[in-house]
Amino acid sequence: MLIRAPEVERPSASAVDAALADLERALGSSKVDTSEAARTTCARDESEAFGVTPDVVVHAVDASDVARVLAIASERGVPVTPRAGGTGRSGGAVPAAGGIVLDTSTMGRIKEIDRAELVCVVEPGVVTGALHAACEAEGLFYPPDPNSWKTCMIGGNVAENAGGPRAFKYGSTQRWVLGTEACLMGGRVVRTGRRTVKGVSGYDVTSLLVGSEGTLAVLSEVTLRLVRKPEAVATLLGLCASARDAAAAVTALVTSGLVPRCVELMDAWTLEAVRRQGAAVDPRAGALLLVELDGETREVEAALERAGGILAAAPGSIEVQVAQDAAQRDRLWEARRSLSPATKKLAKYKLSEDVVVPRTRIADLLDETARSAEALGVRHLTYGHAGDGNLHVNFLWDDDGERSRVDAAIASLMKTTVALGGTLTGEHGIGITKIEYLPLEQSADLIALQEDVKRAFDPQGLLNPGKIFAPRRGHGAC
Amino acid sequence: MLIRAPEVERPSASAVDAALADLERALGSSKVDTSEAARTTCARDESEAFGVTPDVVVHAVDASDVARVLAIASERGVPVTPRAGGTGRSGGAVPAAGGIVLDTSTMGRIKEIDRAELVCVVEPGVVTGALHAACEAEGLFYPPDPNSWKTCMIGGNVAENAGGPRAFKYGSTQRWVLGTEACLMGGRVVRTGRRTVKGVSGYDVTSLLVGSEGTLAVLSEVTLRLVRKPEAVATLLGLCASARDAAAAVTALVTSGLVPRCVELMDAWTLEAVRRQGAAVDPRAGALLLVELDGETREVEAALERAGGILAAAPGSIEVQVAQDAAQRDRLWEARRSLSPATKKLAKYKLSEDVVVPRTRIADLLDETARSAEALGVRHLTYGHAGDGNLHVNFLWDDDGERSRVDAAIASLMKTTVALGGTLTGEHGIGITKIEYLPLEQSADLIALQEDVKRAFDPQGLLNPGKIFAPRRGHGAC
Repeated sequence: MLIRAPEVERPSASAVDAALADLERALGSSKVDTSEAARTTCARDESEAFGVTPDVVVHAVDASDVARVLAIASERGVPVTPRAGGTGRSGGAVPAAGGIVLDTSTMGRIKEIDRAELVCVVEPGVVTGALHAACEAEGLFYPPDPNSWKTCMIGGNVAENAGGPRAFKYGSTQRWVLGTEACLMGGRVVRTGRRTVKGVSGYDVTSLLVGSEGTLAVLSEVTLRLVRKPEAVATLLGLCASARDAAAAVTALVTSGLVPRCVELMDAWTLEAVRRQGAAVDPRAGALLLVELDGETREVEAALERAGGILAAAPGSIEVQVAQDAAQRDRLWEARRSLSPATKKLAKYKLSEDVVVPRTRIADLLDETARSAEALGVRHLTYGHAGDGNLHVNFLWDDDGERSRVDAAIASLMKTTVALGGTLTGEHGIGITKIEYLPLEQSADLIALQEDVKRAFDPQGLLNPGKIFAPRRGHGAC
Repeated sequence: MLIRAPEVERPSASAVDAALADLERALGSSKVDTSEAARTTCARDESEAFGVTPDVVVHAVDASDVARVLAIASERGVPVTPRAGGTGRSGGAVPAAGGIVLDTSTMGRIKEIDRAELVCVVEPGVVTGALHAACEAEGLFYPPDPNSWKTCMIGGNVAENAGGPRAFKYGSTQRWVLGTEACLMGGRVVRTGRRTVKGVSGYDVTSLLVGSEGTLAVLSEVTLRLVRKPEAVATLLGLCASARDAAAAVTALVTSGLVPRCVELMDAWTLEAVRRQGAAVDPRAGALLLVELDGETREVEAALERAGGILAAAPGSIEVQVAQDAAQRDRLWEARRSLSPATKKLAKYKLSEDVVVPRTRIADLLDETARSAEALGVRHLTYGHAGDGNLHVNFLWDDDGERSRVDAAIASLMKTTVALGGTLTGEHGIGITKIEYLPLEQSADLIALQEDVKRAFDPQGLLNPGKIFAPRRGHGAC
């Protein structure tokens, strides 16, 4: 509980009571949950953000439930925080003002997988990993793979425009969303987008909704594009003398024309943490690259050879290993995927950032982060999606008194990122945790324009208030 | 001059005079063009739409010119129609209310091509083909290739979210736009998006602007993503007994896991037109597929073999030919690219539609189009991007008296498209020409929501009025 949500107007007790009565009447009492357990669970997500415990959690089972909640909330003036898996890393599902949590984890149907059209239709409560499995059973493939795929849900993935390692080749969630059924404040339900891959009728409302962190609409259905499951996958591991060498190897790889599906990097401090967990990593290695290729078997074989050659020829290369089988590949990825929980154990507190810099500035970002953190005496380690320039910089500390130095290190990281031509968040969203930094990246005019767009969807400012944009006094809805 | 723009409020003569004086003062008289020639040219684009000849054409040379025009227009209450290449197919650049045409074809600089980051920064007046050439000279590749690439400009491509044959593999323009410099009504200038591939700070205003047909902002700069130029390209031609056979072959190809860069189809009537131009097309062929593959040489060789096998094995396959060299490939494409002008010569009038249906419904669309057009006695032919389900259905006629039957055929096509789960436009936009059909595809609530978004950007309704959404009486801005 480290980052407090901005202060936003809370509903009056009488408004909450009236909404509760309306909700029970409209949805039946089994879906309207005021238990301590539900309210406490829905007060948090997997970020460090905290806000105000909600007054009620509504477990929606279909679009009409969602629409009725939004109609009642609007009529009674009670804020609504939408929620799916609750695995977000920036506080998007954390209520800033109490009120209603609209739980869509109870809408978990995969309505359709169409093999001929390469399309599926799902509800927001489908677990991403379950969708992967269902698609793969049909010989199809849904590429986005946020690290939390075993528990996160499509609703949250779409709300935050989630990425993951495979985003390097396949793009983030947005590229896969063709259309939505979106419930608006007041209770209107609209279908946005389409079922076809191409289409330009009207504004791209679908892309606007993706990544809007539940502040514009609550999705009750999503139509996703799929591809054929790749025939072959191959994984390469490259040990480099330094992170600068590794970053240069990434640029060489990416500009070669090869399109690996993942290009992951771990810095020296991450490798040190991995070694402390008992893994045997060559002591000469100051950085590690994990490169994964997919496609047709012959194509992957050819690409593997080229990628291996590029990594081996890069200055500072120590060793290049090819995973010999699926089990070996799984072990490599298990190590990568466990980094987030494993590094959490290294200290009492951990804050994980999610910045992106132009690929050629990765080494500059790492150097500057080390310089700043060390000057402040803050422990740090960095890993992430180097192909995209998207790095998870982690700050670790044990003593509450260190917090102000960590805050200074984070502020310095954000400034450095923007100065290098980067962006504050690659896949986690602004939510609550990065709200104070948004003005570093975006001008006041751009923020005001987005607040105007927000008002077009939600004039009362009741849908997920206190997210993305800092509330302004006397400025109404946002 | 076949489709009239909706009636929107025209500026008063005194408002125009005041704006003219302001424009000359702010930009100098050389950029403020009231010549008959300029005004007539800027009254039309390459669609069948017509509106009201503008009062003045302003030739902007930089963002500050654009911003000043938008400030003056806003202050004086004069509508502005942005324009780049003027090659649009739906009337997006055709002024519905006279006023100012803001010509950005005079902003034609390629500011930067960054080989390491695979990014370029361009002004809206860069000709798409010139950008292709500049990128390819650096070993890079900008994929979107609207048919008019020799004359169309990036500003218009972004405004309409232009596609082209290569969109099947590479997506339409939107996938390539990372960021913009956008000038808003009133004169504010904002930078949207980013230079990095990944990033989720705030709403995706960039994607909202792409395809908004110049109704939300005027772009003064665009940052585009690039890829490495593919090493090899191969082209296949498949002759099929019928369009239904060809459509089934397309599904077989696409669901095989192969990702050709283009999958083009020509129907029997198109082949007949091609034969009449003197080309030797096998008389047994009732449809033709043009399939193009790109990538690494070995990869393309393998894919060519597989694709050829799939086409040859498809029911109704007559012959599969592989282009033996670049010259042969260029000839095939020259034939495809000349279809639009060539078919224009077949009759006095031609209207070309741009519908998209789910890939498995292509044959149904073609059958139903033939049935309806023949019942109405209207000549028709269809070709287009079958991989995407995006078909250009053309109606031809010579006699003015036939027009009402053509209108009936178009209305029937639009209804059929929507009934098959499709969308009215894949790459041309709604503009003026499809404005009356939008309610077939989109609900009143979705249209009202988009009008609210429009008002967030342009509360006075002065930026490119009379486009996308039919103006409503007494409804203010839109």
